Amino acid sequence: MAKLKVVLAYSGGLDTSIILKWLQTEYDAEVVTFTADLGQGEEVEPARKKAELLGVKPENIFIEDVQEEFVRDFVFPMFRANTVYEGQYLLGTSIARPLIAKRQIEIARQVGADAVCHGATGKGNDQVRFELGYYALEPDIRVIAPWREWEFASREQLIDFAEKNQIPIAKDKRGESPFSIDANLLHSSSEGKVLEDPGVEAPEYVHQRTISPEDAPDTPTEITIDFEKGDPVAIDGIALSPAALLTRLNELGRDNGIGRLDLVENRFVGMKSRGIYETPGGTILLAAHRGIESITLDGGAMHLKDSIMPRYASLIYNGFWFAPEREMLQALIDTSQEMVSGRVRMKLYKGNATVIGRESDYSLYDEDLVTFEEGSGSYDQRDAAGFIKLNALRLRIAAQRKKKLQIQ
Amino acid sequence: MAKLKVVLAYSGGLDTSIILKWLQTEYDAEVVTFTADLGQGEEVEPARKKAELLGVKPENIFIEDVQEEFVRDFVFPMFRANTVYEGQYLLGTSIARPLIAKRQIEIARQVGADAVCHGATGKGNDQVRFELGYYALEPDIRVIAPWREWEFASREQLIDFAEKNQIPIAKDKRGESPFSIDANLLHSSSEGKVLEDPGVEAPEYVHQRTISPEDAPDTPTEITIDFEKGDPVAIDGIALSPAALLTRLNELGRDNGIGRLDLVENRFVGMKSRGIYETPGGTILLAAHRGIESITLDGGAMHLKDSIMPRYASLIYNGFWFAPEREMLQALIDTSQEMVSGRVRMKLYKGNATVIGRESDYSLYDEDLVTFEEGSGSYDQRDAAGFIKLNALRLRIAAQRKKKLQIQ
Amino acid sequence: MAKLKVVLAYSGGLDTSIILKWLQTEYDAEVVTFTADLGQGEEVEPARKKAELLGVKPENIFIEDVQEEFVRDFVFPMFRANTVYEGQYLLGTSIARPLIAKRQIEIARQVGADAVCHGATGKGNDQVRFELGYYALEPDIRVIAPWREWEFASREQLIDFAEKNQIPIAKDKRGESPFSIDANLLHSSSEGKVLEDPGVEAPEYVHQRTISPEDAPDTPTEITIDFEKGDPVAIDGIALSPAALLTRLNELGRDNGIGRLDLVENRFVGMKSRGIYETPGGTILLAAHRGIESITLDGGAMHLKDSIMPRYASLIYNGFWFAPEREMLQALIDTSQEMVSGRVRMKLYKGNATVIGRESDYSLYDEDLVTFEEGSGSYDQRDAAGFIKLNALRLRIAAQRKKKLQIQ
Amino acid sequence: MAKLKVVLAYSGGLDTSIILKWLQTEYDAEVVTFTADLGQGEEVEPARKKAELLGVKPENIFIEDVQEEFVRDFVFPMFRANTVYEGQYLLGTSIARPLIAKRQIEIARQVGADAVCHGATGKGNDQVRFELGYYALEPDIRVIAPWREWEFASREQLIDFAEKNQIPIAKDKRGESPFSIDANLLHSSSEGKVLEDPGVEAPEYVHQRTISPEDAPDTPTEITIDFEKGDPVAIDGIALSPAALLTRLNELGRDNGIGRLDLVENRFVGMKSRGIYETPGGTILLAAHRGIESITLDGGAMHLKDSIMPRYASLIYNGFWFAPEREMLQALIDTSQEMVSGRVRMKLYKGNATVIGRESDYSLYDEDLVTFEEGSGSYDQRDAAGFIKLNALRLRIAAQRKKKLQIQ
Repeated sequence: MAKLKVVLAYSGGLDTSIILKWLQTEYDAEVVTFTADLGQGEEVEPARKKAELLGVKPENIFIEDVQEEFVRDFVFPMFRANTVYEGQYLLGTSIARPLIAKRQIEIARQVGADAVCHGATGKGNDQVRFELGYYALEPDIRVIAPWREWEFASREQLIDFAEKNQIPIAKDKRGESPFSIDANLLHSSSEGKVLEDPGVEAPEYVHQRTISPEDAPDTPTEITIDFEKGDPVAIDGIALSPAALLTRLNELGRDNGIGRLDLVENRFVGMKSRGIYETPGGTILLAAHRGIESITLDGGAMHLKDSIMPRYASLIYNGFWFAPEREMLQALIDTSQEMVSGRVRMKLYKGNATVIGRESDYSLYDEDLVTFEEGSGSYDQRDAAGFIKLNALRLRIAAQRKKKLQIQ
Repeated sequence: MAKLKVVLAYSGGLDTSIILKWLQTEYDAEVVTFTADLGQGEEVEPARKKAELLGVKPENIFIEDVQEEFVRDFVFPMFRANTVYEGQYLLGTSIARPLIAKRQIEIARQVGADAVCHGATGKGNDQVRFELGYYALEPDIRVIAPWREWEFASREQLIDFAEKNQIPIAKDKRGESPFSIDANLLHSSSEGKVLEDPGVEAPEYVHQRTISPEDAPDTPTEITIDFEKGDPVAIDGIALSPAALLTRLNELGRDNGIGRLDLVENRFVGMKSRGIYETPGGTILLAAHRGIESITLDGGAMHLKDSIMPRYASLIYNGFWFAPEREMLQALIDTSQEMVSGRVRMKLYKGNATVIGRESDYSLYDEDLVTFEEGSGSYDQRDAAGFIKLNALRLRIAAQRKKKLQIQ
Repeated sequence: MAKLKVVLAYSGGLDTSIILKWLQTEYDAEVVTFTADLGQGEEVEPARKKAELLGVKPENIFIEDVQEEFVRDFVFPMFRANTVYEGQYLLGTSIARPLIAKRQIEIARQVGADAVCHGATGKGNDQVRFELGYYALEPDIRVIAPWREWEFASREQLIDFAEKNQIPIAKDKRGESPFSIDANLLHSSSEGKVLEDPGVEAPEYVHQRTISPEDAPDTPTEITIDFEKGDPVAIDGIALSPAALLTRLNELGRDNGIGRLDLVENRFVGMKSRGIYETPGGTILLAAHRGIESITLDGGAMHLKDSIMPRYASLIYNGFWFAPEREMLQALIDTSQEMVSGRVRMKLYKGNATVIGRESDYSLYDEDLVTFEEGSGSYDQRDAAGFIKLNALRLRIAAQRKKKLQIQ
Repeated sequence: MAKLKVVLAYSGGLDTSIILKWLQTEYDAEVVTFTADLGQGEEVEPARKKAELLGVKPENIFIEDVQEEFVRDFVFPMFRANTVYEGQYLLGTSIARPLIAKRQIEIARQVGADAVCHGATGKGNDQVRFELGYYALEPDIRVIAPWREWEFASREQLIDFAEKNQIPIAKDKRGESPFSIDANLLHSSSEGKVLEDPGVEAPEYVHQRTISPEDAPDTPTEITIDFEKGDPVAIDGIALSPAALLTRLNELGRDNGIGRLDLVENRFVGMKSRGIYETPGGTILLAAHRGIESITLDGGAMHLKDSIMPRYASLIYNGFWFAPEREMLQALIDTSQEMVSGRVRMKLYKGNATVIGRESDYSLYDEDLVTFEEGSGSYDQRDAAGFIKLNALRLRIAAQRKKKLQIQ
C-alpha cells in the first residue's frame, strides 16, 4: 500500500515543524510542504532547508511568493465592499486563508497527494477557513488537523517531542510566547496570553507593524491614491502593482501610527475572543475607497452595498470565500465598481487617515445642483413639495386612523 | 374669517426672522414662535425679544430647553444601534428634526394653530424631515415652506426685505456667509460655498466645536464610560444626566480633536452634497458603545443589529423617525440592549477615540474558553471537526457536482 | 422655431387617441406614435390607421412586436429571482413598463424627438415606472404626462373633447367602464370602480384570461418544463422561444383556472389599492422554477436570493429597472443560475400548479446522503454532535450568564 | 454514586420505547418520560401504561396536553411574520421542537434530572432543534442522542433488541415502514424511503391529514376569519381558543384538499431532503393573515417584515427559537401587529384558499384616495410630478455622466 501523501501548510517555524515530523511518525506520511510568502515579513527561503533537514524530498518542497495574487484576487475584491466584520475588523487573517487552501489543493493535485494539513488550533476560526476551502475545492480530500488530533496536552510535551526528533528550537520559542501572531501583507494580529483579559490595555510591545500614534511624527503626511474600477492603482501619481501599493501604504500607515485595533470579536465557533490587529495600509485604503465612492457611486448602489456588507464580511470571516453566496455577492459588488475611478487626497497624522479631497472624471457630484445659489435649472425646488407629500401619504393615512380610533 | 395661525420653528436669527415677517405680510398670519435649546451653543432667550419686536404676542412665544429630551429620547436610542449613514455620518442634524417637528405640532394643538412652518431650503433633507414629522403626527396640518414658495431670488432681495421691515441685521449677516451651519448638542455641520468643491480641503475656520488633532494635547486623556442597558450613564464613575453626559463628552472630544468628518453624502432628494461634520462626543460614544457591546452582546444579536443598521440609518436620515418601520427596528434594537451594561475605558488622543479596556458583570467573554491552554472542559476541540464537516457538506456536494460534470 | 416632437406610447384606444390629439392641439406638437405588441391580446395594426386618421405622418408611426424581447430580457430575468411583490404579486404590469420606456427613448433618438408622453394617471405606479425609465436612459428628455396636466375633470369632458376632434369612440367606451385593464403576455390586471371595495368579492366577469377553478376540467393536466440556466426552454420536451413558451403556459394556466390573485397592495405613491391579477403562465413558471432550483441550487445561494428578493421586487414595482442597484441584484441573481437546469414535472388542476417531480444532471440532491439507511460513508452522524455543540456554544454562554445573574 | 436521571421525549411508540430501555441498560439510567399531546392525532394516555411496563416509576411519567400553549406561544407568533422557509414550507415540525425541549428542561429541573434525551436521528434537523433548545435553557445539561451513539446498524438489530427486552412491537412496525411521519396540530410531514427519489410523484397514501384536491367537494366553502392584533380569534364569527381554532381550520383544509406541499429543502446539516408536508389549517391561516395585513398594515412596515422574514424562518428552521436574534425579530414583528385586526372572507375549494374580501375598523385602505374619480382632495396628482422628478434625479445624473463619457 502506498504511503499517505500530505500537503502541509508549512511556515518553517517550530509548530509546523513539529507537525511535519508528527505526520511522518504518526501517519508514516510522505510530507509535501507549502510555504507561502504572503508578505508576513519573514523570509520564506529558510523553510526549504528546515524541510530538507526534516527529511522532505526537494521535489516536495514548494515555496512561493503569492503576494501579488493575494492582494489582487483576495484583498482588493474584499475592499471593494468596504468590508468590516462587526463594524471594525478588516479581516486580515480571514482573507489569507482561502488562498493558502487553494494552493495546497492545487499542489495536492500536482503531486498526487491524498491529504492536506494545517497548523490551526481547534478553538479558532482558521481551522474552519482552511478546511472549508479544502472541501469546496476538492470534496473528497482528506484533512488532517493535528491540533485537534494529537495527544500533546502542554507546551512542554511539544518541546519534548521536538527535542526527541531533532527539531531545532529557537531560544525564544522554548518557553510559552506571551501572545501568538498571524501576519501577512494586509495585517498582523496578536492574540492570547497577555491579551486575554479584555479589561486590560494591550501592552505596547505586542504591536508588530505600527508605531503608536504618540510616537508618530508631529507633522501630517499628505498623499493621493488613484483608483480604477474600485481598486487602488497609484500613490502620489506613481502606478504600483497591487502588492507594491499595499506595501507602500503599510509603510505610510506604520510611520503615522495608523491602523491599530483592539477588538473583542465573536468567533464562528461560538466564543468571544480578543485580538490586537494592525492594518496600517488597509485602514488608509478603506477610508480612501469610501472617499472615491462618495463622488462616483450612485446613492442607491451605495446603500445596497452597505446593506449586504455585513453578510459578505461574515462569509469571509467564517471561511466561506469559495461558497456560491460569496461569489454572488462579489458579482453584485463588482458590478457597482465600473466607474469607481479617480483620485483621493488624504492626510495621515498620528493614527488618523482622513480624506481631505476627491476628484474624478466619473464624478456624480454636481456643484450646480447643490449650490445654495439657484443652479442651472436642473433642479426645481417646488418638486420637493410633491416628493414630500407622496412620501408622507402613508404616514398621514396612518395618523388619520389613529385620530379616528381615538375619537371613537 | 379667522386669521391663519402658524407655529414657526424660530431660531431668532436673520433668516427665520425674515420668514416670521413674511408670514405676517404674505399670509396675514398670526405667528407663534417655537425656539428650542437643543444645545446648539447659542442663547435662546434673546429670541424672545426679537419675536416681540416683530410683533409676536408674548403668549405666542415658546422657548424651551429640550436638551435632556433630545439626548434621552432621540440621540441615545439611535446610538444603541451604532448608527452611521453611508458608513460614516453620525446623523447629528437628522436626529434633531423629529423632536422640533413634534414640539411644533404639540404647540399647534395647544394654541389652536392651523399651520406649521420651517426655515429649511428646497434642496436639502431637512425640509423632508420636518414635514414627514408634521404629517406623521398631525395628518391634516398645513405646512408652509417659505424657501420653496417665496419669490426672493437672491441674498440681496432677502436683505432688502429685512431692511424694509425693520428686521435687525447683524453686520456679519449682511453679506453671504461663506458656509452655513447647523448645530445641536450632538454635532455641528458646515455646508455650502467654500465647501462646495469636494476636491478642496475644508479650511480650518469652518470647524465650530473641535480643535484640530494637530492642536490637541500631546498627552492622551483616559476616561471610563459606564453603560446601563445600552445607554451611557456615567463618566469616570460620576453619574450624569443624558444631556450633561453628552456635554462632557463633547468637551473631551473637542479638546482632543475628535469627531471631525469631511463627507460627500447622498441626499434623500437625489443629489450628492458635501458637509463637514463635528461630532466630538458622539464619536467617543459610538466607539465606547461598540466596546461595551463587544463583551455583553451575543454574536447572533450583534450580527442581526449590524445587518439592519444601514436601513435604520437611512430611515432617520430620510426623516422617517415616526414611521412604523423605524419603531419596529427600534423595538428590535432595544430588545438587544437589556444586558449591555458595564464599563469601557478609553484613550482620547489627537483625533483618536480608542477603547483600551472593557469590563462588565454581564460579560459573555469567557477567558477559560478562549485560552490557549486547555480550559475548564466546556469546549472540546474535537467538536470543531464535526462542526466543520457539516458546514462543509453542501460545499463538498457542489464540488462533487463540478467534478462529475467535468468528467462527462 | 421647430415644432415640439413627441413620442407617445400609443395603444390605439380612446384614451391615448385623446392624448394624441391633445398633444397636437395643446402643444402644437408633431406626434410620433409607438405601439407595442406585448402580447396584450389585441391587434396592434389597427393603431396605424387610427394614428393616420389623427394626422400622424406614416414615418412617425412605429408598430412593433416586442414579445420575444419582453419575455427574454425582462420577464425571464425577473423570474430567476422568484420575484413576488408583497408576498404575492407577480409584477405583470411593472415589468412591461421599462421596455416601453426604452423603446420610446430609442425612437425619440432615431426621429430626433424632444419629448416623450404616456397615458398613465397621476395616482398610479405606471407614471413613475415610465418616467424613471425615460430619465434613466435620456436624462434631459422632456416628459409630458397629460393626466397630470390637462384640465379635463370628468369622463364627460374627455368624451366631449373626443367628439369635437372627430376621434372615433367605440360604443362601449362612451360610458365609464366598470373597471380598467392592463394586459401583456405575462398578465392581465383589473382595477377600479366595481373592485374598489376590498370587502366585496370580485365579480367573475372582471377576469380576462383565466376560467375559474370551478369551471376548469375535472381531470388534471400533467406537463414537464425544461430549464436551462434558470430559464424555461421547453414544454413537454418541445423547445419553444421565450414568448411561445409563455404563450403556451398561459393557455395551460387559463384552461386550468390557474393564476388568479385578488390583492390589496401598497403603491409607491403611498396609497393602498386593490387589483385583480391573472398570471396563468407566470404562476406555473414560478412554481416550476422553485422546483428546479430546489434540486440544483445550493442552500446558501438560495437563502441569499430569498433574502434580497423583496428588495428586488420593490425596485421593479417602483420603476427602478434601470437603476444601478437593480442591475447589481441582477448580477447576483444571474450568477446563481449557472446550473439551474433540468426538468420539472407539474400537475395542473383547478387553480393548483403543483410540482410533482424534478430531475437534473446538475442535481445536488444526494439520495445516498439522505437515506435512513447508512449511506456511502460521506456523512458521519457523529459529526452532528460537534456541529450542534459549537452552534450551541454562544447560547450556552448566554444561559450561564442568566443563571449567574439570578443567583447573585 | 447516584443513578443518572434522564428526561426522555417519549412518544410511546416503538422507537422511543427502545430508547427508554437502552437508557436503562446502557446508562443504568432512571428514566423520566415526557409525552406531549401536540395535536399529533394519537392518544397520549397509552404511553403511560407502556412506560410503566418498561419500569418507569409513576411519578416519573409526565403526560401533558400542550396544544393551547403550542398554538398560542409558538404557532401564532410565527404566523404573524407570514413565515415560510425557502419560499414554501410552513415549518410545522420546526416550531414544535422548542416547546418539547422547554418542557423537558422544566421537568428535569423539577425532578432533579441530569440529562435529557430525544429520538431524533443524526442526519436531520430535529436533533439540532432539540439540543439548541436544551442548551439555551440549561447550559450544562447533559444531552443523550441515542441515534448518534448506539451501535445498532439496522432495523433488524433494533427489533432484535426490542424482542430481547420484551418491548411490545406492533405488527406493522416490525418491518421497515415505507416512510416516516412527524405530526402535530400544525402539520404532518412524511419523509424517506418511497419518497426519496424527488423525480417520482409522492403516492397518495403518504398523505395523512388531507384529502386530495381531486377528491374534495365540487362546491366551494366560504368562511370568515377574525383577527385581533395579528392572531386569528374566530371563525365564522365564533370565538375559539387558539388550539380549537387551528383544529377547525385543519378540518376545513382537510375537507377541501388544502395545504399539501411536495418539497425538496435544504437541511441545516447541509444536505437536501424531500418531504411531503400537509398543513391544511396553516395554509388557510397564512393566506388570511396576509389578507388582513393587506388593509391594516402600513406599506413600509410590511416591506420591512417581508425583508427580514427569510432570516426569521431560517432561525426557526435551524432550531434557534430561543436565540436572542429570534427574540429581537419577534419584537420587531409583534410591534407591527398592533392594528392587524379585522375580518377576512375566504373561499376554500379543491386545494385553493383564496381571500375574497377583507374589512377592518383599522383599515388603511382609502377608497377616496384610490378612486379614478377625483377624490376628497387629499391627493393632488401634481404632487406626483415632483415625486418622480426627485426619485429620478440620481438616475438622471448617472445618465448624464454616461453621455458625457461617451462623447469624450
